[in-house]
Parts: sequence; C-alpha cells; structure tokens
Amino acid sequence: MTTPRKSFGSDNHAGAHPAILQAIAGANPGDAVAYGSDQWTAEATQRLCDVFGARGAFFVFNGSAANVLGLSLMLRPFEAVVCSDTSHLNVDECGAAERIIGSKLLLVPARDGKISPELIAAVLGGRGDEHRVQPRAVEIAQATEAGTCYTLDELRALSEFCRSRELRIYVDGARLANAAAYLGCELADLARFVDALSFGGTKNGAVGAEVVLLMRDDLLAEARFQRKQQLQLASKMRFLAAQFNALLTDDLWRRNALHANAMARLLAEGLGSLPGVALKYPVQSNAVFATLAPDRIVKLQEDWSFHVWDEGEHVVRWMTAFDTTEVDVNAFLAAIRHTAA
Amino acid sequence: MTTPRKSFGSDNHAGAHPAILQAIAGANPGDAVAYGSDQWTAEATQRLCDVFGARGAFFVFNGSAANVLGLSLMLRPFEAVVCSDTSHLNVDECGAAERIIGSKLLLVPARDGKISPELIAAVLGGRGDEHRVQPRAVEIAQATEAGTCYTLDELRALSEFCRSRELRIYVDGARLANAAAYLGCELADLARFVDALSFGGTKNGAVGAEVVLLMRDDLLAEARFQRKQQLQLASKMRFLAAQFNALLTDDLWRRNALHANAMARLLAEGLGSLPGVALKYPVQSNAVFATLAPDRIVKLQEDWSFHVWDEGEHVVRWMTAFDTTEVDVNAFLAAIRHTAA
Amino acid sequence: MTTPRKSFGSDNHAGAHPAILQAIAGANPGDAVAYGSDQWTAEATQRLCDVFGARGAFFVFNGSAANVLGLSLMLRPFEAVVCSDTSHLNVDECGAAERIIGSKLLLVPARDGKISPELIAAVLGGRGDEHRVQPRAVEIAQATEAGTCYTLDELRALSEFCRSRELRIYVDGARLANAAAYLGCELADLARFVDALSFGGTKNGAVGAEVVLLMRDDLLAEARFQRKQQLQLASKMRFLAAQFNALLTDDLWRRNALHANAMARLLAEGLGSLPGVALKYPVQSNAVFATLAPDRIVKLQEDWSFHVWDEGEHVVRWMTAFDTTEVDVNAFLAAIRHTAA
Amino acid sequence: MTTPRKSFGSDNHAGAHPAILQAIAGANPGDAVAYGSDQWTAEATQRLCDVFGARGAFFVFNGSAANVLGLSLMLRPFEAVVCSDTSHLNVDECGAAERIIGSKLLLVPARDGKISPELIAAVLGGRGDEHRVQPRAVEIAQATEAGTCYTLDELRALSEFCRSRELRIYVDGARLANAAAYLGCELADLARFVDALSFGGTKNGAVGAEVVLLMRDDLLAEARFQRKQQLQLASKMRFLAAQFNALLTDDLWRRNALHANAMARLLAEGLGSLPGVALKYPVQSNAVFATLAPDRIVKLQEDWSFHVWDEGEHVVRWMTAFDTTEVDVNAFLAAIRHTAA
Repeated sequence: MTTPRKSFGSDNHAGAHPAILQAIAGANPGDAVAYGSDQWTAEATQRLCDVFGARGAFFVFNGSAANVLGLSLMLRPFEAVVCSDTSHLNVDECGAAERIIGSKLLLVPARDGKISPELIAAVLGGRGDEHRVQPRAVEIAQATEAGTCYTLDELRALSEFCRSRELRIYVDGARLANAAAYLGCELADLARFVDALSFGGTKNGAVGAEVVLLMRDDLLAEARFQRKQQLQLASKMRFLAAQFNALLTDDLWRRNALHANAMARLLAEGLGSLPGVALKYPVQSNAVFATLAPDRIVKLQEDWSFHVWDEGEHVVRWMTAFDTTEVDVNAFLAAIRHTAA
Repeated sequence: MTTPRKSFGSDNHAGAHPAILQAIAGANPGDAVAYGSDQWTAEATQRLCDVFGARGAFFVFNGSAANVLGLSLMLRPFEAVVCSDTSHLNVDECGAAERIIGSKLLLVPARDGKISPELIAAVLGGRGDEHRVQPRAVEIAQATEAGTCYTLDELRALSEFCRSRELRIYVDGARLANAAAYLGCELADLARFVDALSFGGTKNGAVGAEVVLLMRDDLLAEARFQRKQQLQLASKMRFLAAQFNALLTDDLWRRNALHANAMARLLAEGLGSLPGVALKYPVQSNAVFATLAPDRIVKLQEDWSFHVWDEGEHVVRWMTAFDTTEVDVNAFLAAIRHTAA
Repeated sequence: MTTPRKSFGSDNHAGAHPAILQAIAGANPGDAVAYGSDQWTAEATQRLCDVFGARGAFFVFNGSAANVLGLSLMLRPFEAVVCSDTSHLNVDECGAAERIIGSKLLLVPARDGKISPELIAAVLGGRGDEHRVQPRAVEIAQATEAGTCYTLDELRALSEFCRSRELRIYVDGARLANAAAYLGCELADLARFVDALSFGGTKNGAVGAEVVLLMRDDLLAEARFQRKQQLQLASKMRFLAAQFNALLTDDLWRRNALHANAMARLLAEGLGSLPGVALKYPVQSNAVFATLAPDRIVKLQEDWSFHVWDEGEHVVRWMTAFDTTEVDVNAFLAAIRHTAA
Repeated sequence: MTTPRKSFGSDNHAGAHPAILQAIAGANPGDAVAYGSDQWTAEATQRLCDVFGARGAFFVFNGSAANVLGLSLMLRPFEAVVCSDTSHLNVDECGAAERIIGSKLLLVPARDGKISPELIAAVLGGRGDEHRVQPRAVEIAQATEAGTCYTLDELRALSEFCRSRELRIYVDGARLANAAAYLGCELADLARFVDALSFGGTKNGAVGAEVVLLMRDDLLAEARFQRKQQLQLASKMRFLAAQFNALLTDDLWRRNALHANAMARLLAEGLGSLPGVALKYPVQSNAVFATLAPDRIVKLQEDWSFHVWDEGEHVVRWMTAFDTTEVDVNAFLAAIRHTAA
C-alpha cells in the first residue's frame, strides 16, 4: 500500500528521483540494439569504470543478483564465502548464493554490522582439508546492514589481510553511495581495496538498477555469461544504463546520499532528547537503529511504516531516503515522543 | 548503438510505448511498501488473474527468468523438460534451466517452430527407469521462435496429450500478445490449456517487465520463494506492475501486437513480388523469416539492422515492433529489392 | 599408512569384520542382474525394512551421500535444514548439501553435540517471509559428533516439536548402531520418531556400505531417481547388500557396537585415575573426547594415531572400533599416563 | 535375481574376479588411516599414474561419478560438454551432469557410437555469444556405448581438433580396458591424447571401483575437494585401491578384457552362420549389437538375460564378461539358432 505519511520503513519505499525518470524518457526515442550494445550502456559503463577505476561494469536488476553475480566470478562450488551472520547475503536473499553458486557461507559474528581480520581468521582453520569447504571470498557490505561504514583504514586492513590469505573481497554496495557520502571519499577510494563490488541505484533514487564493478581483469571474461545464465541480462538495457547516467551526472548519487544521511542524523539527534529511546548502532548512513519499549513500537506503527528489526530485543530500524524531508523527520520525532504519553 | 533506420533486428530494439512511460511516472509519487505490497502490484495482479483466469501472477525482470521460474515450480532436478530444439529455452538462455533448476532438456525437432504430441511421445521412452531423467514438463512458445502460432486446436491436443501422460505444460509467452492478436482470441483462451505461462511486456512496448501466470493452485505456494531465490524479486515492484496496468488498459497489449503483426504481414506480402526472396515459415506474428542470397544479405546489412538466423541456409529474420510504420516497411522492401540490382 | 599400534583415530581406520568379507565372497558366484535387481539386495532390503519398520531402504556408498540423499527427498532448494553447528553435515561434507540440494543449513549451537526444540525454535523466525529460506527439515546425528546419544525421550520431544511445526526429521546414523547399543533399544525404536535416517555399516565393520531408510510412503517415489542422479547407484549392488545381510545376521551390528562402546567406556574409566586428563563429553558410544595439555598431546601422537578435535581448547578425540581390544586400551592408557612423566 | 544361465545382459552382471576378492581380503588386516592416506592407495595411485602417464589418480565409486568428477574439473556452469546423443553421460546418468555441474550437454549424432571433429565443429557456432552456452569440453567413450573403439588415429585427430579450438577432452573409460585390449595398445597410448579419463574396474572384474586419471597439472588442485563434495570420498579407501592393485598385477585388466572381447568375437562369428541375425555395429570390444525378429527376441528372453537396445528397430545388445566361457557362447548361439525354428 502507499503510506499516507513518509515511510521510514526502507529507502526502497521511496519512488524514483525525477532526474531518473527524465533519463529513462530521454533514452526512449528511436531503436537501439538490445542486450547492451547501445550508446547509453556504452556511456554508463565508461563513466562507471572511470569513477571506480574499474575494469568492467555489468548492469543487473537487483541487489541480490549483484551479490550472486559478483561472488560467482570468484568461486568454485566447494569454495566458501566468509560473511557476517547478519549480512543481507546470509539473511535476506532466500539462499540464492547456496543454490546458484553452490557455495556455503561461513558466518562470523558481526560487531555493529562489521567483520574484521580477526573474526575472519577464526574460520580459516580447515584450509587444505578436503572435508571442509575452502574459504575463498570475503563479503562485506558498505554501508552495512546495521547502517555503519567501514573506514578506509578498516578496508585497507581487510584488504591486506585478505591478500595475505589468498581471499578475495566482494562488497555489497546496495548503499555504497551512503557510505561514500558519510566517509567523504570518492567511490574509487572504496573500490581500490576490493576485487569486485556492487553499486546500488535503486535505494539511491533509481527506478531499479544495480551494477557490478570488477576491479580485476581476470574476473572479466566470464561475467557476461554468468550474468546471462543468472537471469540478469536486460534486453532494453539502455533503460538500466540511463539511470546510472543520471546518477553520475552532477553527482546526483552523492547529493541523494548526503541528503538521506543528513535526515538520519537529524532523526538520531532528535532522539537524543527523548527518554526511553536508545540508539543501537552508530548512525553512519541513512539508517537509525534504536530500542524502544514494545508498547511504544506498537503505538508508533499505527501511523508510521517501519521495521521491527529484533522482536526479542525491541530494536527498530528507521530509514531515510533521498526524498525524506526535515518536516517528515520532525513529525516522526513528535510521534515517537507522543508514544511515551 | 542506435539505428538510423528502423531496426528489423528485434522487437526489443524498439523503445517503450509512451503509455508505459506515463504509467511509470504515474506510479512514482509517494512512498509504497517494497517487494509488491503496493497498490499498483495489487491492481495489476488482480487484472492479470482476471484476464487470464489465473490463480496467481508473479512479476519478473526478463523472459529467461519467467521461463525458469515457471518451470521450476513443476520440476524436481531429475525431472526433464521436453521442448523444441530451436526453443529460446534451449538455445538462447545460456543454460539457465540446467544450472538453476538442475533439469535436463529433452529436445524434439520442431516443425515450423512447433512440437506435437507425436514428437513428444517419442522421448517418453525411459519413464520409470532410474537411469533416465523423467519427463515431467513440456515447454512450448507462443508465438514460437519461428514466428508461428499454435492454433487453439493444436493447444487442446497438446493439453489432452500431456494430461493423459502426466506432463505439465508451460508456455513461453514472450510474444503471447502477438499470438493472441493473430489468433483473434482472448489471453484466457490460450491460458486454459496449460499449467503456467509467461506474458511478455518487454517486446510489446514495455520498458522491461514480464509476468508468470499460474493456472493451478498447487503451483502457488512456492512461487514467491522461488522468485526471490532466483533473483527476480523487484523492490520497487510498482514500476513493473504499472507497466502491465498500462498494457491492460484499453487493450494496449493487443493494439501493439496487432500493429506489429500487420507490419510483418505487409512486409511478407511485399516480398511476394520480389524475385530471389522466399518465406521460410508462415508469417503468423511479427516475424518474417526469409531466404536470400548471401551477397544480398551482406548488402542489406550495410544499412539495415537484422539477424542472420541460419548462416548455412541463408535464412534471415526480420522483426517488426509496435512502432514499426508502413513507411519503414516500404523503405525496407525497397532496399531489399535494391540488393538484387 | 598403516598404524603399528591400534589406531584411536577413527572407527573407519579399522578394516572389515571377517563376516563381512565372507558375505561378499558368498555373494560372488554366478551372475546377478545389476543395479539392485538381485536376491541379496531383495533380502537385505526386506530385512532392513522389517528391522526398522521402514517403507524403503536404499543403499549408498558413504555417509555424506546418505545424508544428502535422505535430506534431498524432503527439500526444495529454498527450504533449509536446521542442524547443529558441529554436525558432520555442516562441517565435514565439503558443502555437499548446499551444492547438491541447493539448500542453506541453519545452524544452532549444539550442547554436547545435541540440539533441542528450544534451539530449533530460535531459527524459525522467518517462516513465510520470502526473503528468508524456509526451515523444512531438522537434521540430527545419532550418535552425535560428540559421541553422545539422544535418549528416546529426547527423540520423542524432538519428534513432537517437529510435527507441530511442519518440520521433517532426518537422522545421520553413521553410528546408529552405537547409539542403539548404548540405549539398549531396537533400531525401530530410534526410527519411529523420524521421517528418514541412515544406518551406517562402514564404521561398524563393513568394507563400505550405508543405507537410507525411509519411514514415510511419500518419500519413496523419487528416492531411486535421486540416488542415481546423486551418483550413488551401485551396479554390482549385491556387494553392498551382502554387507548388510552379514551385519543383520545374529545381530552382528549390535555385537560390534556393544564391543566398541565397551572399549570406549573402559578407556574413559581408565582416564579417571589419570591426573591432567578431563572428559569433555559424556561417553555414550565409541568416542572419548578429553582435554589434555598440548605437550602431552604432541608426545602421545608420536606413537599413537588420533585426532586433535579442538586445537585451541586442547580437546582430543579417541575412538574405538569393533576390533579394539582391552590390551589396546590398556596400552593406550599406559601411554597417556606416560606422557605426564 | 541370479540368472541360471550365463547372462549376456551386461558385463556388470558378472561377479568379481577371485584376485579382486583376494586383494580386498589382503588389505584387511590392521588399521589404516582413512580417506586415502594408506599404503594401498599410495601404491595404486603411483602405479596408475605410471601406467597412464597421469599427473593424478582419484578413486570414485562408480562410472557416472567418474564422468561427473572428471568433467567438473574442466567446466564452469555456463560452459557446455559436447558429446554423442547416445552417450552414457547423456542417456544413462539421470541428468547428473546437468544437476551437479550445472552444464548443458550439446549433443551430436553418433556414427557407430563415435563422434568426429566435423560433428563437433557443427555445434561450436555460438561461441562468444552470451546467450549461448560455451562449448568447453568434449566427452567421448572408449569403448563407446555401441561397443566400438576410436583408433589411435581418430584420437589424435580429435585431440588436435580440440586443442585448436580450446576444447578439453574427457574420456569415459568404463570399458577402457576392452578398448586397449582391442587396439593392442598401452593405456598410456589412449591417455596421451586427452585431458582426463576414467578407467573402469567394475565391468572388468572388480567388486566396484573406478578411477579418474588427470593428465594435466592444472586439473589437480581441486580434484580432492570436488570428489568429496560430489559424495565420492571413500573412508576405507584401501578397499578401492586394492582392487586396482589386483587389476594392474600381471596385467589382469588386460587378460580380463582380452577374454571378454574374444568371447564377443566368438559370438559374432557364430552369428555369421545364422539366418535372420545381422550385426548392427562392428564388434570391437565385448559387446555385440544385432538385429533380430521381435518374436525371436521374445523367445530368446525366456531363458536368457540381455537388453533390447532399440525396441523400434529390434536391436539387441549381448555383452560378454571376463568370466563368459566358450561353452556359454556356444549354448547361447544354439539358443539363438533355436528361436528360428
């Protein structure tokens, strides 16, 4: 259903940014060769490769598909992915990685959504033992499911660790824009530490478009075939590419992300003065995780849309989007305050 | 690249119909719950179920995905799909069915793109033998890859045969609209003979949207999970649904298909007066397959975009779209005539 | 390599019981139709079904294959298996379940190798949510990887819980004989609580033979095909079946298991008088898990073969077999004592 | 069931050669480290590598498993196997390759069971096209399902063709012994033209043992893991290895194969004088394919066990084994003659 009030349920409850719709309409006139042999795809691919310092860019339909495609290029089915137990890959993709890649996920307990060399090292014990799956890739999200961001130093440490252990790194960048905006860095700064990553358009104001960036030449050769076999080849690809052209123009991606992040910070700051509400994780992107008494949660959900993240611990997730306004945040804060009455 | 002249390469070389873009823009304002819990999805699902007499409708991103999803609901991995050797499923989906469903395709030689009970019966020999894959589903395309259409009588015969042999039928309906337009029947007339089918929007003027219709209650339960695991769950699903709402409004799907079919017929009729050009298959949708001397093919391709279907037999495929004009067809006919000079 | 002293490394370090070799030789004369249409397979299948109260018995080559076959009959790829984090299925099968079934394993922390309704309930949260894999089967081992056994009461409780939650139960019975011997019950007493289980011959004195018992008619139909497709159909099946005929004759399986268990108990009791050695888990089958100072472990491994189970916590696993003798145990105890010097 | 008269149904209807049973018994005394770290495995591996000129040898349980393992080392799931439409891999393995490797089989029509560079070339058309699976391996059988053998010249031609097209070759050698015996060559002469092959023990007098030989170093690294994940790692591997040690001792494999081949030739020669019986394929191993009137087939099957290979064309397959005697063949010839009465 549509939500009469601004949704804090997810950044994908928002519609598309007007510039995205204009770009789609702008790509419409005339014929274009299908499956990516069109000028919009050529342009977006080139721009993305330039911005990321990438060797290749492959458009796909959604975030789960980006994760499966990126990881599939690095793995044989007996090789495993090390990732956070709370990762989208593990929790929210209905076992797509296991089914489509055939690989096991080796879970490590996240701290504030993040994993570290120490945590990864703890699951590398069975290497060389044919009874065990062989860890081969590390998957992290940037920003994480907890809304936190790996610092550049943390990424460098992960990168050095992984290189020293012959592990490849893939980044789920469904909210990469929010991370780059928070860290104040370039997309290339995030990309240089890893082997492949996704860059999400959908949660950043697109109608629906994600892209997988490959940072190594040796991952390129089979990407086209894997994408097709994984059901991700768009025939009228110009309409995916055009969305990225819009996001890259005048750094729309960053402006959208900065705004969403600012709204989350505004919300978090407003919570500071509200008794009975505690932040669960540092607010480093467009997500605010907080604990709240169960009856207040119920009351607030009568009028507002958001997710209860952890039923047992009364954790809620409130997300902002590119189109969340200060008015929306203040109205929501007032409503939260009101639940204490 | 864009094509300066109208492309006869594929119906997916066309852009989107203006009504589709309007529908996307019309679905944009405001928030909507993600993953299909929105009013546009509810509306499109209801309308599609009504029009097809279906028990459920599940949006996916592209035609290969529709085929894999629909078939996956009917099959265990040791069960096989009987299909035409020239089918899109077999030839043009990069082995997606084998990888994702795990099932073998049992190929039968198509006649004018079509298969028959007799041809299917010929591959049912190993039933009950544990060394053999067990035929469980029959896949046909409507219209076929050869541009031909199964008549309602042919569908009925297939249906009765399959029911008597405990085979389920899935229809690849990437061009179902063209078939219904050619046959002058309702979509429900095509659907009632089968267990599941896809209905393609993309080649009929959409930006990119396909839907899987399920005709049996027992296929419903796992469709949502299979769709998600197969990487086909759209977060902003309203933008897929809105495209179908536009196609269903005032029978836009049929008008687009009738027009494309008429342009193909115009082209075919024009070929009749051209020496050295022979139709390969009956023209029953928006595809014209013809044979032409190789040097004439080369000459024609200098200015016009189309596919050589069979290099060895000099067969070309010329496709029309919802936006192909009589002027386009006549210019193309003139160019074909000119290659004889 | 062969081990000059009796190995305490695994019950599969032992050779085969003489009665097994005799049974293989006894099945050799004359021709027999392949793939199980022989008298030995008919006999063993009937006897196993009688002993277990099972609806079908399917021979396979090893324990991992039994687990994958049994579980595959219960699962669609989006459905998950709930199992212990320390289970053989999770740790020691190189991701076979994920690759071949396509399903995710949902791990719960084992206590003494066992899982409980409470632990299982904790991972059932996402049912009905298409983003999550859907728990559908529970896998336990009997005896467990920790050498412990579920009591009949614990099995009943698990069974009732699973039935109430529409979960099926599969038992990894690679050491089912040891469990039945410890519990003093019939094999049917263990089988009646579950939907399918394996019964291991290899660790109980066979050359190499395992069997999957199906307790429900609705699992039967596809077992033959799944077994073949999973590469487990033996052509000269009489030689697998004959091994089970030998194990069932005069309860050889129980005698072997009782003896192995008794040797483990003897070892465990002998440890009681040794300072610096502590049992890690209750000794309920043919495995003794103990903690020992690292330097003593190293010293002991110079002459004796066994596994260090947990490097960090200095846990070793000592296993006995059908052919371990009191002299072997006493010599090993003396050697352990000697490491303290 | 056992067959009162010698079976001509399959070479796996025979039991095991006495030397095989002795080898198993001989490997029994004492403990041995599991999973292949034993002296028998070391010895058999070394001898097999020497005999074949191979880089590695990996024991598996049956022929389908050998085929899947060998091919899996060469393929990514979007890559395809070119093979004969009548191959065991395609017809008789219940879709194991598709399910476990994820790859499509590209079928070419066999002539007398064999395929050729010309036939393979005909299916290489879609290379580089992301919509098509990418041919990467060629699978042949030696001897073939039709009982014929590729000559060394034919193998060389296939090898050169495949190398020139970046295709790898895998040989299903379930009856490799029969081929080497027929061709009068060494096993290494057959192996040097290919990338990997299997060597079947089961049909050559073993209880049940197959081995995959790898001829290239770059296939070695993942073989252990793939074997385990594909459910083919034997715990008491000494009992598989010992069977190969027996087959290699005094060229038992060749003696068994020469005898079986000679019995097939004797049978074929005897058929020459029988009216109404025609050979279907050249007799080059231990299989005789013949056509016979349907009523004579029925009559013969009353007392004798064999397969009707092609119901429609009245083709039967008669196979000999290492233990078929001249008396058996003559009795069978008399029975065939008798059906004409």
